[in-house]
Amino acid sequence: MSGNWRTGAVAGDLESRLNADKGSDIKAVLVVHNETSTGVTSGIVELRRAMNRSGHDALLIVDAISSLGSIEYRHDEWGVDVTVAASQKGLMNPPGLSFNAISQKALAASKSAKMPRSYWDWQGMVKSNETGFFPYTPATNLIYGLREALQMIREEGLEDVFRRHERHGRAVRAAVCEWGLEIVCTTSQEYSNTVTAVFTPVGYDADQLRATILEHFDLSLGAGLGKLAGKVFRIGHLGHFNDLMLTGALTGIEMGMRAAGVPHKEGGVMAALRLLAPARESSRPQLRRNY
Amino acid sequence: MSGNWRTGAVAGDLESRLNADKGSDIKAVLVVHNETSTGVTSGIVELRRAMNRSGHDALLIVDAISSLGSIEYRHDEWGVDVTVAASQKGLMNPPGLSFNAISQKALAASKSAKMPRSYWDWQGMVKSNETGFFPYTPATNLIYGLREALQMIREEGLEDVFRRHERHGRAVRAAVCEWGLEIVCTTSQEYSNTVTAVFTPVGYDADQLRATILEHFDLSLGAGLGKLAGKVFRIGHLGHFNDLMLTGALTGIEMGMRAAGVPHKEGGVMAALRLLAPARESSRPQLRRNY
Amino acid sequence: MSGNWRTGAVAGDLESRLNADKGSDIKAVLVVHNETSTGVTSGIVELRRAMNRSGHDALLIVDAISSLGSIEYRHDEWGVDVTVAASQKGLMNPPGLSFNAISQKALAASKSAKMPRSYWDWQGMVKSNETGFFPYTPATNLIYGLREALQMIREEGLEDVFRRHERHGRAVRAAVCEWGLEIVCTTSQEYSNTVTAVFTPVGYDADQLRATILEHFDLSLGAGLGKLAGKVFRIGHLGHFNDLMLTGALTGIEMGMRAAGVPHKEGGVMAALRLLAPARESSRPQLRRNY
Amino acid sequence: MSGNWRTGAVAGDLESRLNADKGSDIKAVLVVHNETSTGVTSGIVELRRAMNRSGHDALLIVDAISSLGSIEYRHDEWGVDVTVAASQKGLMNPPGLSFNAISQKALAASKSAKMPRSYWDWQGMVKSNETGFFPYTPATNLIYGLREALQMIREEGLEDVFRRHERHGRAVRAAVCEWGLEIVCTTSQEYSNTVTAVFTPVGYDADQLRATILEHFDLSLGAGLGKLAGKVFRIGHLGHFNDLMLTGALTGIEMGMRAAGVPHKEGGVMAALRLLAPARESSRPQLRRNY
Repeated sequence: MSGNWRTGAVAGDLESRLNADKGSDIKAVLVVHNETSTGVTSGIVELRRAMNRSGHDALLIVDAISSLGSIEYRHDEWGVDVTVAASQKGLMNPPGLSFNAISQKALAASKSAKMPRSYWDWQGMVKSNETGFFPYTPATNLIYGLREALQMIREEGLEDVFRRHERHGRAVRAAVCEWGLEIVCTTSQEYSNTVTAVFTPVGYDADQLRATILEHFDLSLGAGLGKLAGKVFRIGHLGHFNDLMLTGALTGIEMGMRAAGVPHKEGGVMAALRLLAPARESSRPQLRRNY
Repeated sequence: MSGNWRTGAVAGDLESRLNADKGSDIKAVLVVHNETSTGVTSGIVELRRAMNRSGHDALLIVDAISSLGSIEYRHDEWGVDVTVAASQKGLMNPPGLSFNAISQKALAASKSAKMPRSYWDWQGMVKSNETGFFPYTPATNLIYGLREALQMIREEGLEDVFRRHERHGRAVRAAVCEWGLEIVCTTSQEYSNTVTAVFTPVGYDADQLRATILEHFDLSLGAGLGKLAGKVFRIGHLGHFNDLMLTGALTGIEMGMRAAGVPHKEGGVMAALRLLAPARESSRPQLRRNY
Repeated sequence: MSGNWRTGAVAGDLESRLNADKGSDIKAVLVVHNETSTGVTSGIVELRRAMNRSGHDALLIVDAISSLGSIEYRHDEWGVDVTVAASQKGLMNPPGLSFNAISQKALAASKSAKMPRSYWDWQGMVKSNETGFFPYTPATNLIYGLREALQMIREEGLEDVFRRHERHGRAVRAAVCEWGLEIVCTTSQEYSNTVTAVFTPVGYDADQLRATILEHFDLSLGAGLGKLAGKVFRIGHLGHFNDLMLTGALTGIEMGMRAAGVPHKEGGVMAALRLLAPARESSRPQLRRNY
Repeated sequence: MSGNWRTGAVAGDLESRLNADKGSDIKAVLVVHNETSTGVTSGIVELRRAMNRSGHDALLIVDAISSLGSIEYRHDEWGVDVTVAASQKGLMNPPGLSFNAISQKALAASKSAKMPRSYWDWQGMVKSNETGFFPYTPATNLIYGLREALQMIREEGLEDVFRRHERHGRAVRAAVCEWGLEIVCTTSQEYSNTVTAVFTPVGYDADQLRATILEHFDLSLGAGLGKLAGKVFRIGHLGHFNDLMLTGALTGIEMGMRAAGVPHKEGGVMAALRLLAPARESSRPQLRRNY
């Protein structure tokens, strides 16, 4: 489906398309849960409901690569048939591992499908899973890394990991808003909590700003992609990331805009600070030791 | 010599002491170049001149542990007899290696000295140096680390490394000043560019503030030591360190003071930002690619 | 084509099959250069000649995964259309990178092919190659590893790397022969220089021997695969590997056979030693320093 | 005390010396438990008994650097006053940490001693120990390493670690004996289980042999030290070390002697193999799976 790149997938549009597909030509609906290039998170629950309303039999396939382990995602509860995820985002590892969660319906579909497959075939993996071995050469180093990443997430608490990303997303948007810049995502309930895409002011090249920031501050921002190229820079805030990494990145952007002469209102960093650390109500002196 | 901990070693005091030492009981003057616990850098050149004026024969021994590779230091030109340095500060390695630069006068003194020595004896090392070997088990891993550190310093340029530390020192002091807090060091020409010690407001325990910042922001500040305990926190800014690490640390302190209810004026981070990235004179639109 | 698993691909058989394919149904011939499961290296040059003699238009695709960087292999000179290689064998990295070398003929075929592709499509990569970027998320860590691996190979010299593997292959076979065991590969010109598959004596379970060796000596040998399961163990000798790692592995096998009660003739290790370090002709005393 | 370098400290000699010291000029007896340069382990229990018999008040100080964690050593039970150990041998870390175990008697002596001390002063450390902190900059990285090393030793079991070293020591001596070479240590109950020093045949330079072995096989043997220089090479076998590392090292030596033309009897490696893996009594065929 086409779209304007500034909102998530629209449930109503999906429902219409499925209703129009009388011959069941559509075998699967593929949705990106969290769109890295635009900073938009689509509402999987709403899309699933739209599919259910249409009564269409298509599989629901969701790309959760840049949301898994950072933003709430529920394969079973949300009725997803195939979830595609990977090691290199919220799971904090180098790229090299990908995972599929598969519903019984998807598994059955894969058995009756007639398209030639090898790499995409689940059967070898499903069979090996019983023994814990892999059908082919596994990336053992990444499996150790994954074990550590999952342990880190467990130690922090998955719900707290989600809350941290949500809090960081809000802090970034507070900064962007204070700077007077425009966020690509136009619907606040679809703001991504792992990446924020931001328009530079009209007439100012986002890639030049990114280059200035990289050169001066050793901070690499994401580029605008496709039709957003040159107009947008992207602030990633996911995975092994804490408040000071975030504020360090925001100061890099604010200093970069100063250095590059990109018009903005000062104070984005301060806005993020206030959101991240609310002032204490009372500020009466504490007793000082040895004083 | 005693002192008030808020200035460096005083050349005049040293001269008086040496002049009074008619019997040459003083064998050596030991000065810490950059005092980590107070953030004060002593003027070695002035101290050497005072020694020269007194005509006293004592050796000048300088602890350059927390300045070497971060703040300008010149063993030969400044007439130092023994410089003591180590791997774990500006040379960016774990602790475990220490270095001595030795003048001919110091070497001669060590040969005629009668104090029993073993660990402190230079002769074994001097002899082995000719072959590149060590007289005892060397910490080979740290020697590799040191090689890499020196390469990093060469790539950036030693003068630029000094300038970076000087710039960071000024940015930290700009932030502290904006917060309305007091720096321990009272003489601006002796401000340390690798560490800044800051008093918390009277009545506010510096260690409680440090604990709050560590807990909330995973940022570990140095404690006040000795008579400054509980009254002072220290901001280190040396070695492998860039603008965003610095501003990240400053935001952690500003947020920590908000969270802990320590009275301060907002805007320290902004003051540092303005110093680190001066605004461009002209801010006319740049041509945007693909726009 | 079927085969007995104890020799490489047979050029004559290939030629007959291609000659019989009057309708050009065969689009490509896929050969494994070095077969890991049997320790057999196929003669690509002979197979290419057979294809040329037949005048058949099929592409020649070679899996060089376990030979590249260990055994001589020449994509262009040998007239291979597609070479498939990977990071985890002779290139001494974790699994995670795969490479294709592609002839103009293969590139043209891929452009006219009508099979749906995405992962296997070369076009995105070919296009990105011009700029040095990747079309999708690259495994940057492995690219750094690969750079180091190539540097290591250059330092040793590629020809010397081949010679080392050839020498190690001979030493392993000398040990196996001395033990009185049988090598899977029956044609000496097809012996693999990166892995040797060996039959245990009839009645002795190769997997029990492997388990004994792993438990006692922390040495993990390869298992027999498919119809060789339980009958064969495999000795890998490729990549970052030197004489003492090899002899250490051989002593583990010889000690393991003793410990497990697997009948064998003592002396395999000695046979390898003699091959790896021929005795000096003359053994007259050398002058001893300080004697 | 002088000695011939081929036995440990002699209890009778020590007793005589202490008996002769009527004025208690001797304040401490320093013994190296395991002498790295000769491969001799002194009997601390016998030496302590000799001290007790003499009734002399000297402290017993033992250097356990190359035995701790590899050879049985008991500070309290053996009545040692000061044990000196370090991180870089049996504790399997880089050099950089040293440890002292101190008896109450030694602690009292240090308090009444009048020699100027700083580095060697225990008081700062004793005081800090209560809080777990260090009086000066600690080598934190090595403390993490030490924690892991202790965990590794616990997992294997300390008694089993000792047994492994004892077994490896015997295997090395079996090889040396088979080669027809002479071990420096002449008393079998004093053989070191962490290092074996071996004479090359008269007329053959040990350092040339070591150089040949290093060049051909990337195996670095210890040099003879002091009056043993050029006559002796040393085989270390301690710490993180297993049977195949040991046999790999022994094959390197045997191959090196062949390559260098150093006269020896073949079969040292075989002798070690037989000791490390005794043949099973019964060698009746096992049932093979899938056969």
